[in-house]
Amino acid sequence: MARACTIGIDYGTNSVRAVVVDCADGRVLGTHVSNYPSGDQGILLDPKQPHLARQNPADYLDGLRDSVRGALAEAARDTAFSAESVIGIGVDTTGSTPLPIDAAAQPLALDPRFARNLAAHAWLWKDHTSALEAAAITETARTHNPELLAPIGGTYSSEWWWSKIWHCLNVAPEVFDAAASWVELADFIPAVLAGVKHPNEIVRCVCAAGHKAMYSETWGGLPPKSFLTRLDPRLAALRDRLYDSALPPGSPAGYLAAGWATALGLRPGIPIAMGGFDAHYGAVGSGVTAGTLVKIIGTSTCDCAVAPSTERIADIPGICGIVDGSIMPGFFGIEAGQSAVGDLLKWWVEVVCGGDEARHERLSTEAASLAPGQSGLIALDWNNGNRTVLVDTRLTGLLLGQTLHTTRAEIYRALIEATAYGARAIIQRLREYGVPIDRVVCCGGIAEKNDLFMQVYADVLGQPMLIAGSPQTPALGSALAAAVTAGARAGGYDDWTEAQSRMTTIKQKRFEPRPAASAVYDALYAIYRELHDAFGGVPEAKGELASVMKRLLAIKERALGVTA
Amino acid sequence: MARACTIGIDYGTNSVRAVVVDCADGRVLGTHVSNYPSGDQGILLDPKQPHLARQNPADYLDGLRDSVRGALAEAARDTAFSAESVIGIGVDTTGSTPLPIDAAAQPLALDPRFARNLAAHAWLWKDHTSALEAAAITETARTHNPELLAPIGGTYSSEWWWSKIWHCLNVAPEVFDAAASWVELADFIPAVLAGVKHPNEIVRCVCAAGHKAMYSETWGGLPPKSFLTRLDPRLAALRDRLYDSALPPGSPAGYLAAGWATALGLRPGIPIAMGGFDAHYGAVGSGVTAGTLVKIIGTSTCDCAVAPSTERIADIPGICGIVDGSIMPGFFGIEAGQSAVGDLLKWWVEVVCGGDEARHERLSTEAASLAPGQSGLIALDWNNGNRTVLVDTRLTGLLLGQTLHTTRAEIYRALIEATAYGARAIIQRLREYGVPIDRVVCCGGIAEKNDLFMQVYADVLGQPMLIAGSPQTPALGSALAAAVTAGARAGGYDDWTEAQSRMTTIKQKRFEPRPAASAVYDALYAIYRELHDAFGGVPEAKGELASVMKRLLAIKERALGVTA
Repeated sequence: MARACTIGIDYGTNSVRAVVVDCADGRVLGTHVSNYPSGDQGILLDPKQPHLARQNPADYLDGLRDSVRGALAEAARDTAFSAESVIGIGVDTTGSTPLPIDAAAQPLALDPRFARNLAAHAWLWKDHTSALEAAAITETARTHNPELLAPIGGTYSSEWWWSKIWHCLNVAPEVFDAAASWVELADFIPAVLAGVKHPNEIVRCVCAAGHKAMYSETWGGLPPKSFLTRLDPRLAALRDRLYDSALPPGSPAGYLAAGWATALGLRPGIPIAMGGFDAHYGAVGSGVTAGTLVKIIGTSTCDCAVAPSTERIADIPGICGIVDGSIMPGFFGIEAGQSAVGDLLKWWVEVVCGGDEARHERLSTEAASLAPGQSGLIALDWNNGNRTVLVDTRLTGLLLGQTLHTTRAEIYRALIEATAYGARAIIQRLREYGVPIDRVVCCGGIAEKNDLFMQVYADVLGQPMLIAGSPQTPALGSALAAAVTAGARAGGYDDWTEAQSRMTTIKQKRFEPRPAASAVYDALYAIYRELHDAFGGVPEAKGELASVMKRLLAIKERALGVTA
Repeated sequence: MARACTIGIDYGTNSVRAVVVDCADGRVLGTHVSNYPSGDQGILLDPKQPHLARQNPADYLDGLRDSVRGALAEAARDTAFSAESVIGIGVDTTGSTPLPIDAAAQPLALDPRFARNLAAHAWLWKDHTSALEAAAITETARTHNPELLAPIGGTYSSEWWWSKIWHCLNVAPEVFDAAASWVELADFIPAVLAGVKHPNEIVRCVCAAGHKAMYSETWGGLPPKSFLTRLDPRLAALRDRLYDSALPPGSPAGYLAAGWATALGLRPGIPIAMGGFDAHYGAVGSGVTAGTLVKIIGTSTCDCAVAPSTERIADIPGICGIVDGSIMPGFFGIEAGQSAVGDLLKWWVEVVCGGDEARHERLSTEAASLAPGQSGLIALDWNNGNRTVLVDTRLTGLLLGQTLHTTRAEIYRALIEATAYGARAIIQRLREYGVPIDRVVCCGGIAEKNDLFMQVYADVLGQPMLIAGSPQTPALGSALAAAVTAGARAGGYDDWTEAQSRMTTIKQKRFEPRPAASAVYDALYAIYRELHDAFGGVPEAKGELASVMKRLLAIKERALGVTA
């Protein structure tokens, strides 16, 4: 049989990447990155609104064409490759990134009347203008419809669908009124490729719907009109122009339209996989399966796990989302995360120490020479709030234990350790609620480059840290979804697990926990939890804060082999 | 009447300074500084014992000759000046800085047999080798003689007399056995000038005895033998070779011996004032009196106040010492302090930010442009432990409220603020126990140079910050003590208050509290106290740690005029 290939397209924050992947073994045959030309590295900003972050939908469309053609051109350098062998396309994007569309399913922002209206553009995931709306949604749901919050960890975020749309209604009613419907970027791109001409034809993924829009089959789809009316009757009216059902990955979102087939040089009619969020398809591309936690470690961290849909799992307080079919069909998709990981180190090295990439490396080398506990420091990793398990953006950082001799490398290490304790708190919570975590697979830049970071995580979590084989797991996961959507008869797969076993790999290099270090970190983690619970407002917080500094000094002295 | 002058000699950590002062108005006619030549800037170190800090008594004697002769030579440039007009000499020193002496009252270290034995040298105030002994003394006193601890704040320090002598006994018994007696540096120098030839002839000041050696007339002088026997019977035996009574300043410690008169070019027989600690005579030279708190602000801070001896004042928990006559006769001398002030800023700028003096100034300028509360930060000033009111060297630093945008200048300011909150906690404690504080006078390098620092203190304390007129208040205070010791008939004074009104001044430049800033700092101080009490182990600690970060954010947003 001829080689079958799929294309994975990964919409990131600043660029879009396309890869052409061999379905037989996941090998990347061609790749191409297109940077978004608009705004500041693709982000539209407003100096008067520091929390605003939008994107120009035209960048998405231009980038789609450019990235796929570039990846195909690179693949074609191998004369054995033919675009005819491409059997499907998959798409992953950032999210929640909703955009308003018109009656022809075209972005309002492309209408000259709205070209300069930032509210008519795509509302990027990290747009935080909707804090008041988010708080009001949480409050209203707690009072009247607490069931809506249970699957999303108990708090609705300003980064999510309804907060953004409601904020648009409040600050730019002309845009809200002009919008025939709204669509997540993850659903928009597949609809574009399928040539959809009406909002009703857009296929919606349960990934975005369940994690960001309070969609659940339990209550018949999106939140009931009675709830939306309490927010604003016009939101209730909008519900009729949105969608009634959302689908897990596996079933096609559509088939490649003739125009795009011509533009990209592909066969028309090949299936387009259901769109999904980058973290979710990244987890798929990292080999996520029951018992495996995938950590996507970058500026922040996204943790993904799955649990078989056959066993009902409890709502887990503080876990951002548990949605049936959101990562792979047949599994609950479970999502957690940390708001600042790479960003925390970047802050320390660049903002405080005034350093650059070389300083990062020197501090990392110096910090690696320290024994666990010897600095006497402990930190909370909350400089950007806490996403899991406290779900509170209004928490801030804490550093404790410094003396007149504390060095910047000691603090650098303490910050790495703090993020590792935060990671342990997430795993602890998942296990407490019956989600087994036997294996941790990491991907992202830090996992690939920072050995100290990975060793600290292995020691703190007390478990080996594995690294995904691909440096582009979201794009690989999208391509894998396309291979399953196309099916075995077309040269792909009928089964997700089989596709993962063929198309994904784990690096040989791995980091094993060192028992002596883990013992020290167990003691430090106990102190972290005391601080975490006390400052995080955990109702049942226990701890002896009065002895925290002295216990850290005792750990320090043991690490240094000295007596007081 | 001819101009009358006195000499003040100030033994610091790295050098000795002599000044020649006009008794009429406190004007300095000549000054000279002699650096100690031994060790590292005058400090003998042992790489194997990081807590060890000793000094060579030969440096004290050479420095005495050199500094006084230098100051007299400078004064003599004015032909109207004559050494004949010097009517007395005063001495202040660091402390507790005890040294072992032989039967002729000579330092053991000058005996060639002990020249290389660091235990035979002077045990500098900041020698911390005696931590175990200090803990055992505190514990024994708490169990058997709690009255001994009451006047010194409840905890005996490793920096003090008995801890050091006992440690010498434990680690260098040959030195302990060879010592005929021990003497504080503050008593040693006056005895040298007086030509004392036997330990029994040394006049001891109540300043060192009361604050450092648990001396009180209430229990008949030094601690009872029954107590010392519990520590070690050899300490009880040493008590017989120490002293039975100690005197307040005012009465002479002796009269200038002929040999030293010749060596210095002074009249023999002029009175030598009672020695005292640098901070105490610094307070005198800053105009301390009932209702005035003098803050000597340097690497650390020493706070001195006095209260009339006619009114018995309560023991004040956490105040290092309340000793009748330790600063001026007729007053209780009250001493408190903060373990790191200038050192805290030095740590941040030099160790963490890798900067120098110019960086200090840039950060100070940048920090001065911030409004109180706008950083959202709060810190505890415990990087070197807490001297007052917690009396706990095993406390460490804390920084809270940082985001991904927090700058080094914001942290620099937060550290200044933290020391100001610590200063407020001391004043609050003094007031709670009936010591009125109506006026705050500052001296030391930071008070003279750092306007931001002084303004923050005015705002946090809610009271004007005055600055002592002299940049060398300890030496001026010693010279003033000499003028009072010589008396009015000799051209000095019979009354301390009159001497202070004539010889000390306050700078015109002063810092007034700004009401709006003080209001913000009142709110921040309340949060500081919650953290202080929780981490400092205050038994009645109250507070809502779970809301600390959010309250700081609310203060920050008000300061910035933004809504969440």
